[in-house]
Amino acid sequence: MIKIIAVGKMKNKALAELAQEYQKRLSKYDKLEIVEIKDSDARREGEKILEILKGAKAKIYAMAEEGKCRSSEDFSKTLEEDLAKFGASVFIIGGPYGLSGEVKSRANELLSLSPMTFTHEWARAILLEQIYRAKSISACSGYHHK
Amino acid sequence: MIKIIAVGKMKNKALAELAQEYQKRLSKYDKLEIVEIKDSDARREGEKILEILKGAKAKIYAMAEEGKCRSSEDFSKTLEEDLAKFGASVFIIGGPYGLSGEVKSRANELLSLSPMTFTHEWARAILLEQIYRAKSISACSGYHHK
Repeated sequence: MIKIIAVGKMKNKALAELAQEYQKRLSKYDKLEIVEIKDSDARREGEKILEILKGAKAKIYAMAEEGKCRSSEDFSKTLEEDLAKFGASVFIIGGPYGLSGEVKSRANELLSLSPMTFTHEWARAILLEQIYRAKSISACSGYHHK
Repeated sequence: MIKIIAVGKMKNKALAELAQEYQKRLSKYDKLEIVEIKDSDARREGEKILEILKGAKAKIYAMAEEGKCRSSEDFSKTLEEDLAKFGASVFIIGGPYGLSGEVKSRANELLSLSPMTFTHEWARAILLEQIYRAKSISACSGYHHK
């Protein structure tokens, strides 16, 4: 079970289409839920996110530029370990001004997609592709090749 | 002047739209040329790329997973330095099976967008967004905020 908590809507049509495409593809491998939170300010967004996380039995990743970078193979391995240990992985993507310190402290891991900066809309599309890729790696589906 | 030499077509409609969107946006800042090479095998693709590069006065980046990761700010600074020194930057994106050793040797820098793996179509869209972001950073346009 994978959950994405994301602040703000996908306004860019092409990025929204990509996110939907990989969301659909992912459904072959795992249950996926996307919870969208209205963007306001980092504090209020943070309170809502913490409310959703209350009592969650899952590995919680906060997407953050200062976070740990992982290769796709390493990410795939970690997702499988999460599933075995917690049964679920949750990914939190902040809005344009990032996540509050409280949300970052609540997370088990700060994860970065790249040392380069992406908008939150790009981050959501890329994250979905990487989760799909991670699942494809575990399933040896041939989508990922080296 | 920025040139992108890319192997293979953009088959995914949403990624093609994104690439076009940032290509258009970039035209505000710099001349951009995209040269598409038919995908065959790494050796033949490599020969065509080297042919195009013959006598080029430019900083040449080969996109490669094992390459150097740069932050968006650092990438922006580097692009400005290229412009001052060479007048142009060239980015080479391989096809599904990557670039030949000869092309990598010809490049001034191996550049990686992330330790995570992207398809060549995603790489082209992300690279265009990052070049646009880099130019926006130098222009203090407000597109990039920290």
